[in-house]
Amino acid sequence: MCKACDYTIHGAQHHFGWDKSIAPVETVAPGSTILFNCMDSSAGQLGPSSTVADVAALDFGKINPVSGPIYVDGAEPGDALKITLEGFAPREAEGSAWGWTANIPGFGLLADQFSNPALTIWKYDAKTMDPALWGDQGRVPLKPFTGTIGVALAEPGLHSIVPPRRTGGNLDIRDISTGTEIYLPVEVAGALFSVGDTHAAQGDGEVCGTAIESPMDVTLTLDLVKSANLKMPRFTTPGPVTRHLDAKGYEVTTGIGPDLMSGARDAVAGMIDLLTARYGMSAVDAYMLVSTCGDLRISEIVDMPNWVVSFYFPRMVLE
Amino acid sequence: MCKACDYTIHGAQHHFGWDKSIAPVETVAPGSTILFNCMDSSAGQLGPSSTVADVAALDFGKINPVSGPIYVDGAEPGDALKITLEGFAPREAEGSAWGWTANIPGFGLLADQFSNPALTIWKYDAKTMDPALWGDQGRVPLKPFTGTIGVALAEPGLHSIVPPRRTGGNLDIRDISTGTEIYLPVEVAGALFSVGDTHAAQGDGEVCGTAIESPMDVTLTLDLVKSANLKMPRFTTPGPVTRHLDAKGYEVTTGIGPDLMSGARDAVAGMIDLLTARYGMSAVDAYMLVSTCGDLRISEIVDMPNWVVSFYFPRMVLE
Repeated sequence: MCKACDYTIHGAQHHFGWDKSIAPVETVAPGSTILFNCMDSSAGQLGPSSTVADVAALDFGKINPVSGPIYVDGAEPGDALKITLEGFAPREAEGSAWGWTANIPGFGLLADQFSNPALTIWKYDAKTMDPALWGDQGRVPLKPFTGTIGVALAEPGLHSIVPPRRTGGNLDIRDISTGTEIYLPVEVAGALFSVGDTHAAQGDGEVCGTAIESPMDVTLTLDLVKSANLKMPRFTTPGPVTRHLDAKGYEVTTGIGPDLMSGARDAVAGMIDLLTARYGMSAVDAYMLVSTCGDLRISEIVDMPNWVVSFYFPRMVLE
Repeated sequence: MCKACDYTIHGAQHHFGWDKSIAPVETVAPGSTILFNCMDSSAGQLGPSSTVADVAALDFGKINPVSGPIYVDGAEPGDALKITLEGFAPREAEGSAWGWTANIPGFGLLADQFSNPALTIWKYDAKTMDPALWGDQGRVPLKPFTGTIGVALAEPGLHSIVPPRRTGGNLDIRDISTGTEIYLPVEVAGALFSVGDTHAAQGDGEVCGTAIESPMDVTLTLDLVKSANLKMPRFTTPGPVTRHLDAKGYEVTTGIGPDLMSGARDAVAGMIDLLTARYGMSAVDAYMLVSTCGDLRISEIVDMPNWVVSFYFPRMVLE
């Protein structure tokens, strides 16, 4: 896939959690382009033939591996690491590109309402990247991206991979896709960059806790912006971010009240009610489906004391 | 503007706040199409020649008038009122369509950081609806919509117009624009529908507290869905919602942490920092500008304990 990569980081060169004491797997100059063979977020515990029993048996000590870390020559605290996403190539298994979406008990926006494990397996064509079929009812447009992209924290010790932080990490921002440039605050010498958690599609929010989780090769270029003194990650997209799925417009549900979290929960629950009533799917299937393509937006955050959170479901998926 | 309206509601037929005891200005059958001459959200206190002194002198007892109420024959509690937005026609003053965006002390996502009144006056062409010029630096794409659209509450008494509620009201959802169908829960006989607070453009969040506030004529059709038992407003858009502004992609800042409100504040503050540093504008000007076109999205709400709120600023506005 990579025509002009300076380095390849193989799947075995991964780690779990952020820790500045983890030895770099490679040292590179700014401007280097690197190919990463990223594992899926189950680290291979799930595959195209997995069943819901495999979700129940997941070893959480092996969740969300990231490939790296990469030591970037000259990177110092106060700099920003600029990462340009050059491309994504889903890897095949059992003859097809594939991915999984699961409801993992205890995890997800509506974890209190969905306590049993559930699993959707997706197959798709990595060459055409045509929308992935959802049973015989739906088609989810694909846009590969990396869910976890970050650098080591200044604080010593091992920090969980699950929460994102000011240094990036498990951001799960679905627009960190091909062509996007993302800037991360550097906190340690060499930055110690890692990447993983590749997704074939996800909506804003990743509401059920998982996206279309797919192993992929990721190519990216690392650069430095000296003394940027960035407080939080930021990024620039090269063009529109939703045209692959917005052609038919949206069904939108809302959650209104003084708490944004409750608003988000109400909006997503409302969409699950709408889809189950209209299409006869199960609630947990709707929950997993909307996680791959529905977007949480804050429509209004100033009309005291009530805010409006809206959940946008692209109509082309089911119409 | 209205080719086949059954009724016209004039500007004087407005009220402040929701109260089921307000007498209807008209009684209509389901299926009726109505033209509303909506005032701007200052109820005419601001005009194309206003200055910041006029913002400081605003009478808040006259903020956010809504036109109506309309009694819909046959509407009963438990029904949904379906409103189809047929069209918007900005009204001219002093020879041009116009609008205002203000920082009103004590109001807005970053009210603690912007304590002085400020005002931007916009002029635009109501026929072409070309982007509104922002000084000599920017162009904000326009998409007219209604910020306040709702029905009376079952609870007696006068309820402030400011907060949106389960019956709608000051939703400030920027996609309630031409072609959108919105459904509101009916709580009283006749529904008692009102509309107002027309905007020429706004981003998701309306972060400074105001949009491009413009007086407009609004045409819409009212229908009933019997016994819908809707919990919250929902709506359907007829097509894409951001293609008027996404062609060049986005600059995106983030806020990461365990509180969505803090995340939203950090993301917006980060964008103001970026725009002031890059373009040399004042912070309050950046704050008002991004309120008209920047979008707050919840990128991730499941990676405990930290969530990611992102603020998307369309690059075409300033590039």
